[in-house]
Amino acid sequence: MSVTAPRGFDAAGVAAGLKSTGKTDVAVVVNRGPLKVGAAVFTSNRARANPILWSQQAIQDGVVEAIVLNSGGANCFTGTFGFQTTHQTAERAAELLGVSSGDVLICSTGLIGTGDEVFRAKVLDGTAKAIAALSPDGGEAASLAIMTTDSRPKRSVVGRDGWSIGGMAKGAGMLAPGLATMLVVITTDAVLDAAAADTALRQATGVTFDRLDSDGCMSTNDQVTLMVSGASGVTPTAEDFAAALAEVCLDLATQLQGDAEGASHDIAIRVVHAASEADAVEVGRSVARNNLFKAAIFGNDPNWGRVLAAIGTTDAAFDPYDVDVWMNGVRVCSKGGPDASRDDVDLTPRATDLLIDLRVGDASATILTNDLTHDYVHENSAYAS
Amino acid sequence: MSVTAPRGFDAAGVAAGLKSTGKTDVAVVVNRGPLKVGAAVFTSNRARANPILWSQQAIQDGVVEAIVLNSGGANCFTGTFGFQTTHQTAERAAELLGVSSGDVLICSTGLIGTGDEVFRAKVLDGTAKAIAALSPDGGEAASLAIMTTDSRPKRSVVGRDGWSIGGMAKGAGMLAPGLATMLVVITTDAVLDAAAADTALRQATGVTFDRLDSDGCMSTNDQVTLMVSGASGVTPTAEDFAAALAEVCLDLATQLQGDAEGASHDIAIRVVHAASEADAVEVGRSVARNNLFKAAIFGNDPNWGRVLAAIGTTDAAFDPYDVDVWMNGVRVCSKGGPDASRDDVDLTPRATDLLIDLRVGDASATILTNDLTHDYVHENSAYAS
Repeated sequence: MSVTAPRGFDAAGVAAGLKSTGKTDVAVVVNRGPLKVGAAVFTSNRARANPILWSQQAIQDGVVEAIVLNSGGANCFTGTFGFQTTHQTAERAAELLGVSSGDVLICSTGLIGTGDEVFRAKVLDGTAKAIAALSPDGGEAASLAIMTTDSRPKRSVVGRDGWSIGGMAKGAGMLAPGLATMLVVITTDAVLDAAAADTALRQATGVTFDRLDSDGCMSTNDQVTLMVSGASGVTPTAEDFAAALAEVCLDLATQLQGDAEGASHDIAIRVVHAASEADAVEVGRSVARNNLFKAAIFGNDPNWGRVLAAIGTTDAAFDPYDVDVWMNGVRVCSKGGPDASRDDVDLTPRATDLLIDLRVGDASATILTNDLTHDYVHENSAYAS
Repeated sequence: MSVTAPRGFDAAGVAAGLKSTGKTDVAVVVNRGPLKVGAAVFTSNRARANPILWSQQAIQDGVVEAIVLNSGGANCFTGTFGFQTTHQTAERAAELLGVSSGDVLICSTGLIGTGDEVFRAKVLDGTAKAIAALSPDGGEAASLAIMTTDSRPKRSVVGRDGWSIGGMAKGAGMLAPGLATMLVVITTDAVLDAAAADTALRQATGVTFDRLDSDGCMSTNDQVTLMVSGASGVTPTAEDFAAALAEVCLDLATQLQGDAEGASHDIAIRVVHAASEADAVEVGRSVARNNLFKAAIFGNDPNWGRVLAAIGTTDAAFDPYDVDVWMNGVRVCSKGGPDASRDDVDLTPRATDLLIDLRVGDASATILTNDLTHDYVHENSAYAS
């Protein structure tokens, strides 16, 4: 169901020949209203793909009628021609849907530098084909069409009293070795205005997708879009909506982590007793980006020294000689020194829990990451299509 | 010859049983004067090993009589006991050499958390054994004793008119998977005072060792020490000494890069036409730390999109759509768009040249790194001794 679980949305996923496998590669999600509210967050990379440049402008007025997504080419660093392709895609969709092109968002994923005449023709044809196939049951097809190297689609639905939120996602660091592209579309039939949608989306992504850091590589194409139809007629409280939205976002983020290609461990880095949430995030991220730590987890080696060495590179408030580190429930380091034997730690399960107790305050944060494996290197060295 | 090439230095390397292989693992370098000047730079990691904590205090007065180095254990996060081990090592050396313990520096390398009673006993015995073996020809033995997973020792000597500089080094990111420890000892018989030695060392390391970033993982034990005997009686100009010292440092840094375990490419990232040297370094470092780029180079894939995506994460002044990227002499990206075919780039040689032209200013910098390989993951997942 995914994005068509809430009322007021049609979707489709079709094959346009962008993927050499012949699998579906263009998805469209349309908001049938009555509200046409939208909000979106984008990659903070200064090198941004053409669809990002387009969508950042299109979302300004808080109105979104439809979104077109393609796999099989990132349309990034493809120059003026590439931007025109994005523009023409929005125009084509708008014309067929009878809406303004400025209310059509675009997302692309695939290899950077891909965006030639052939790409353009296929995307434009695929857009028309997808619009012709739109259906209130099209959520599943749409979630399949945005997959690249994902082994399975990512979908989530949360139902509340009279309203719901649905979502689909693709990608994450290791998932899309062409580049770490994460595309997410979330829909709801709850009633909320553009400002409320924007606030809720930023809050939810800030503590979910923004804390998924599988390999530290920031994409040029990341986009998370929220579309609001209001078709339920129900106006939830801001708190209720925020909670439900965070639930969907966390579910999708966890699915992305769990399907990270090449990964053999899903690592939750929980930083507790930090002086501030910013400190906790900085510490968690520094560990999540430490190749030595990540390779050790791949080898089932509870190498806590690498954790402390990573923490030591941050500006967070902590005393290196007053930090506790737990791995899968075993305290391997207390007050910056060896504690339980490494042999007591079982790192064979895929789910890996790293708890860092900074012992300085009351703030905490969790960063989700993966291990660094032979398969990660293989996927990212061999991939070029 | 390495550290005993300049006059006024004795050295030795002996086996103390710290390495399970039985190879030599304790080295001592002694300055016979007449000057006993020293300078050192240390890891900026806030999590620092006991030898670093000791040496940072000992170097304060600019006087260094001797340095004791061990492999086979980092003596990091080993608590008060570990610090006492370092202290006792300095005391033992000082007693046997008839000098003050405050003028003896200590360096350790190996697994974090290693520093128990057995370690202490072996280090103390090894120190005595090495001092008994001191010789004006001991530079080679010392350079061998500090090796961990290095496949070969790193030595460098630069001779000038009447004076010289010698050096030895071990480690670099991938070299010491226990943690990226880099230990360097440089000696000279030129005449210079402590302030001049300190200035020269900081300048030289700032543009050599500090720009070697094989895997982005900062060590808890890094130390580069310069010892000045003045035995030549020659006082070079500051410029001449700086040039010779930079030559030795660059030679050793390049040797470290070339022996990075698991690596199959030595990558020089040259950033040119940056607005400032700081910008050039930031851009180079962001690329050097991008796993997707490094894995692509391993796969001989000229994936310039990953270079631009990495640059986009920096705060450097640049326009993503006005950047040129060259790989091994082929311009694969011009003004942020595709240029020459990927097929034109031959990435099979180990030496890899990445040129990033930011086209905004006159500053430049070169960062040295390596690729991300299956063997890197293997080394760093399997290593635990």
